[in-house]
Amino acid sequence: MHLFLEPRSVVLVGTSRRTGSGAYNNLEVLLRFGYTGEIFVVNPTAGEILGRRTMTSVADLPATPDLAVLSVGRDRVPAVFEQCVAKGIRRVVVISQGFADADDEGRRLQRELVETARRTGTRVLGPNTMGIYNAFAGFTTAFLDTPRADPPPPLALVAQSGVLQVGPESWCGTIGKAIDVGNTSDVDFVDALEYLEHDPQTRVIALYLEGMPRGRRFLEVAARVTRRKPLVALKSGRSSAGARAVASHTGSLVGEDAVFDAVLRRAGVVRVRTVSELRAAGLALLRFAAPAGPRLAVVTATGAGGILVADACEDHGLTLAPLSPAVREALAVDRMSWYPVSNPADVWPLVMATGDFTGYLARAFGAFLGDDAVDAALGIVVCMDSPLHRDHDLVAAARAISAANPHGKPVALWLYGSGAVSAAAAVNAAEIPNVACFETFDLGVTALGALRRSTLLRAEAAEAAAQPPDRATAPTPGGPAAGVVRPSGPPVSPPEPLPPGEVLLGTAAERVLARYGIPVAASRLAAGTDDAVAAAAELGFPVVLKIASPQWVHKSDRGGVALDLRDEAAVRSACAALHARFAAATPQGTLDGFLVQRQGAGVELLCGIKRDPQFGPVVVVGMGGIHAEVFRDVAYELAPVTAADALRMLDRLRLAPILHGARGRPPVDRTAVAAVLEALGRLALDHPDVAELDLNPLLAGPTGCLVADARIVRA
Amino acid sequence: MHLFLEPRSVVLVGTSRRTGSGAYNNLEVLLRFGYTGEIFVVNPTAGEILGRRTMTSVADLPATPDLAVLSVGRDRVPAVFEQCVAKGIRRVVVISQGFADADDEGRRLQRELVETARRTGTRVLGPNTMGIYNAFAGFTTAFLDTPRADPPPPLALVAQSGVLQVGPESWCGTIGKAIDVGNTSDVDFVDALEYLEHDPQTRVIALYLEGMPRGRRFLEVAARVTRRKPLVALKSGRSSAGARAVASHTGSLVGEDAVFDAVLRRAGVVRVRTVSELRAAGLALLRFAAPAGPRLAVVTATGAGGILVADACEDHGLTLAPLSPAVREALAVDRMSWYPVSNPADVWPLVMATGDFTGYLARAFGAFLGDDAVDAALGIVVCMDSPLHRDHDLVAAARAISAANPHGKPVALWLYGSGAVSAAAAVNAAEIPNVACFETFDLGVTALGALRRSTLLRAEAAEAAAQPPDRATAPTPGGPAAGVVRPSGPPVSPPEPLPPGEVLLGTAAERVLARYGIPVAASRLAAGTDDAVAAAAELGFPVVLKIASPQWVHKSDRGGVALDLRDEAAVRSACAALHARFAAATPQGTLDGFLVQRQGAGVELLCGIKRDPQFGPVVVVGMGGIHAEVFRDVAYELAPVTAADALRMLDRLRLAPILHGARGRPPVDRTAVAAVLEALGRLALDHPDVAELDLNPLLAGPTGCLVADARIVRA
Repeated sequence: MHLFLEPRSVVLVGTSRRTGSGAYNNLEVLLRFGYTGEIFVVNPTAGEILGRRTMTSVADLPATPDLAVLSVGRDRVPAVFEQCVAKGIRRVVVISQGFADADDEGRRLQRELVETARRTGTRVLGPNTMGIYNAFAGFTTAFLDTPRADPPPPLALVAQSGVLQVGPESWCGTIGKAIDVGNTSDVDFVDALEYLEHDPQTRVIALYLEGMPRGRRFLEVAARVTRRKPLVALKSGRSSAGARAVASHTGSLVGEDAVFDAVLRRAGVVRVRTVSELRAAGLALLRFAAPAGPRLAVVTATGAGGILVADACEDHGLTLAPLSPAVREALAVDRMSWYPVSNPADVWPLVMATGDFTGYLARAFGAFLGDDAVDAALGIVVCMDSPLHRDHDLVAAARAISAANPHGKPVALWLYGSGAVSAAAAVNAAEIPNVACFETFDLGVTALGALRRSTLLRAEAAEAAAQPPDRATAPTPGGPAAGVVRPSGPPVSPPEPLPPGEVLLGTAAERVLARYGIPVAASRLAAGTDDAVAAAAELGFPVVLKIASPQWVHKSDRGGVALDLRDEAAVRSACAALHARFAAATPQGTLDGFLVQRQGAGVELLCGIKRDPQFGPVVVVGMGGIHAEVFRDVAYELAPVTAADALRMLDRLRLAPILHGARGRPPVDRTAVAAVLEALGRLALDHPDVAELDLNPLLAGPTGCLVADARIVRA
Repeated sequence: MHLFLEPRSVVLVGTSRRTGSGAYNNLEVLLRFGYTGEIFVVNPTAGEILGRRTMTSVADLPATPDLAVLSVGRDRVPAVFEQCVAKGIRRVVVISQGFADADDEGRRLQRELVETARRTGTRVLGPNTMGIYNAFAGFTTAFLDTPRADPPPPLALVAQSGVLQVGPESWCGTIGKAIDVGNTSDVDFVDALEYLEHDPQTRVIALYLEGMPRGRRFLEVAARVTRRKPLVALKSGRSSAGARAVASHTGSLVGEDAVFDAVLRRAGVVRVRTVSELRAAGLALLRFAAPAGPRLAVVTATGAGGILVADACEDHGLTLAPLSPAVREALAVDRMSWYPVSNPADVWPLVMATGDFTGYLARAFGAFLGDDAVDAALGIVVCMDSPLHRDHDLVAAARAISAANPHGKPVALWLYGSGAVSAAAAVNAAEIPNVACFETFDLGVTALGALRRSTLLRAEAAEAAAQPPDRATAPTPGGPAAGVVRPSGPPVSPPEPLPPGEVLLGTAAERVLARYGIPVAASRLAAGTDDAVAAAAELGFPVVLKIASPQWVHKSDRGGVALDLRDEAAVRSACAALHARFAAATPQGTLDGFLVQRQGAGVELLCGIKRDPQFGPVVVVGMGGIHAEVFRDVAYELAPVTAADALRMLDRLRLAPILHGARGRPPVDRTAVAAVLEALGRLALDHPDVAELDLNPLLAGPTGCLVADARIVRA
């Protein structure tokens, strides 16, 4: 990658003769950016551009540059690329659009490009990319005149878009380096992360993601990188409308957003929802040490601001630190003994009473930051730009606060008032230790919340990585299951192939589950009514009756299930009713009979396996029952899952308190449910031909759990 | 109120001799603000301040000013206030803190102040207030040098805090007028709204709320004001930590946030969650006409931005307009026939291809805005501050877009890049019709979402107001029920008093419900086991058995309920088990017997009545069953509720799809449930002594619904 980021020489192909305003001339931009390497320009007709002699083709170059940057029309890309290869150029950025991002012809052109690249060992960044931004080396492939950060911050950006490096202050914040992976035809997130992992100029990495071509490999590499540096990700396409827009933007295969979420968490990457949050989280990760806990002290020049911060804390996993007597004492002002201090501490009246803006702020922050019960502080401070308020010298105040913070806890500030915007910029530019100003106090809270979450996720990911099984050896989607280290659990024999059939239901599905030790409610397939009555008597009442037919996969939605049948009469009348319903709805259907099952009890869960197009096999657990569809309380984890992973999945559910035994009810056997999830993970890896598997419901009781119905769909 | 906002003369009491930087001198601030009325200053010792002769006391004033502004220590406030009254001053702003916001002594002082005010017909704003900001009249009571908006926008702010008028650009956006109601000891939101309702200088009203002293009256007045002008509210204390902070800030009585939510909605006030959203929504309400629908067109210079906007739309109730063939045609550029256009429309390659930044943007926005399927547009546009990008003249582009928008649909823009911040300010300052720039694209979407919601809520509130019953005549909390116009429904006889007892359970509660036509599952109170068996036989199996004891109010949490008993044997063994459990847990308790009830079926709902300390009787409905606690899917409405209100409550629940019949299940009888809610509203008004009433569960079936258990708690 370093040839992409720090080329000693570069050839620009397709640079136009037009220069100046409105020309979008990448040569002109590169020169203004301060690039000091050698530049060649290829333009078949120009003769010269900006006083530089142009070449008519890549073949004519007097030397072989480190990098070629192609901005020619998409039809000309393959030919120019071949010329680059012939010239011995090993790195090519294809800025041009109209490939996998566009139409069938574009997809064909991209395939052709990639084949040539693979065949010749040439690496391609793009197509459909803004390419590289490197403020350290003074190199950019942009055609927009983006300012060069000086000094460049140790924040690197890897994005599936060029826009975040165009005026980064509007997007992810000022950056030192950026790589736009574009259509990720060749160079992708994995390559970029592998470069940044050991890059001494990078301390924090921001990601903008739409899709993920090498999903499992990304997980592996990202998890490795977060052991060294924090990663923060903005992933778009979380809504259905957004997912559709992703597909048309970079032609990415889009999987389920919740799966992506699980991957990022597992890799120790903290996820944010908006561009503003990305900026805020990036700033916090750059400027602050990891806080020891979630307990926030709030020092505010306004009571309203304090309340609003308290509300925001609840949204971002932070708590308000209790106010210790020592802090209360330290904040008090003699003349105002009646003044109530709490946390949030509305200190304005006290600032006024002392007449010492900077001094009182330093005293208040110092008192809180010195308290062991406080992990970080947030300040809301007025800053008026007026000759009447020269005391509002926020750089001086920030320095005083920093000096009063011996343990180096994070201090997030928000300034308001007519002087706030310029003062905040001045404070941030001064790089005062452990102090940073945020654009809003919500973003200050968001940033501290993200910082805390990043710390926890990185620790958890590092811990998981330290333990077998090595998850990274799981197969890539559709790939072979070889190399899988199995999670702990009962040893299983080499996987038997599944029985034939596109969809396995009833006893066929149950036999597969049984091989993995997943407990299934006892059942019998009864051919007719008398059989059903006999089966019920054998299993014991109450029973459930279900239509068994390949045409009725979604039995309960169609009224194909009769619950809680208490005696023979009930079974007979249910058989008649189900039969009539089946015949009326699907006169051509095959009725295999009725599945008779002992009625179970417990909290209804929904468990299963899915295959994500990007990340492969996924284990799912969530709320079951009639409310499942509307509340969508579901946790995802990539297969394989360990028992510990599985228990964490259960605890991520909103219904976790119910599983732990809410309101006097007995807790459910979470260990038994976790064992089922673990087994599902093994099953998913053993049988890549299982496209989907549903246990619906899994009834979780105080001692054990039981599958009441299962469905397996083959790929 | 106009004497507060536009006094012809004012006396400042407590102004210090110190002036200049750090003095916080309110006289100096007032003079800089450009006040042209007469100013008197009272300071017992100064002699003169800023060249003005000071008076030693209010009594010495040569004339009676319209308004007094008190900044003296809290102990001196009562005496100075008496002097003001004696002098004939009718309006007093008490800036001083340390009243109901502080301690018992403060509460006493505030009571004293209010008594004097009421007795003498003097109106008080405060204490604990920043007072008034009026950029139109050049009047402010601030001690911070806040810039005077020029020209003042027709946006007024009423806040339970002074901070929003200090550097309003950081909070609610530039304002024309502001009133800080402080501790609302006398002048409150109601007074402020009554003034602003007919104020020709105000078109939009922003509220910052913590609590609400005259809850029902606020609802009535706010609902009237929204018929003329939009209101947008930021209400803090939505979290439990925030609610605690509210109590210590202005000493407000804090009710349930969800009740406040219901009040705002009913009044047609659109609520926002953060200060940034308040600013964005205010701007949209000032600049845009009401959109006809939620369908958004997105024109963007970046594909990533389009996707992120699509995600944000889902969060804010907006949809992406379908792309019509005519728009597709209009956006196409000959040289790039392969370029895929959709909505969001990533137009940058097309802008580049035409080489006409302003022209192409106007063409793209014009095409969308001319389409009947589009209600509003959002643009994401690059703006670099560079000699290479003079074409990025965003004021010119915004004018061209505005000219291409004949129907005046809202156009929200977000600019990014090195020139974005100053260009956005220039665009907004130019007041280009129907175009406004927002700070982030998320806030642009938020603003358009709030605009749409405001339109819908105002229409709904106006419609409700046009129909009897007049909800505003509902009694204030604890007040008499006189003057209540009853909602439609079966006529009821004058309310009989409730039977005695602090808590009414079982048959006692059922008899009360029956008077209101609320259907209760048939039940019998059985003294012992034989009685219970007989009752079950009479009611018909299956039955439910419940412990009847004044000590066991939360029966099901304690295991005092046995469900689904199918025969005599089951009833007998349940009696034995319940009896044993009761005796073990509450050996001193009184066991009245067992309530035997026919087992019902249906979707479990939880309905009831609560009394909010600010707004009085409230009707509640939500999800029942074991998941109720964790999902908290609840809708609130102030009593009385009409049938239409009640149906809307049901549709606000997340489980609404289940009530409408999800996944092939029959729909629930929503009309029957609505009738219960309507009846609860009547019951709440008839019986102010009912502090709380729970129907838990109300079983809602396809034909009718049935209360399975009820509990009434007296005040």
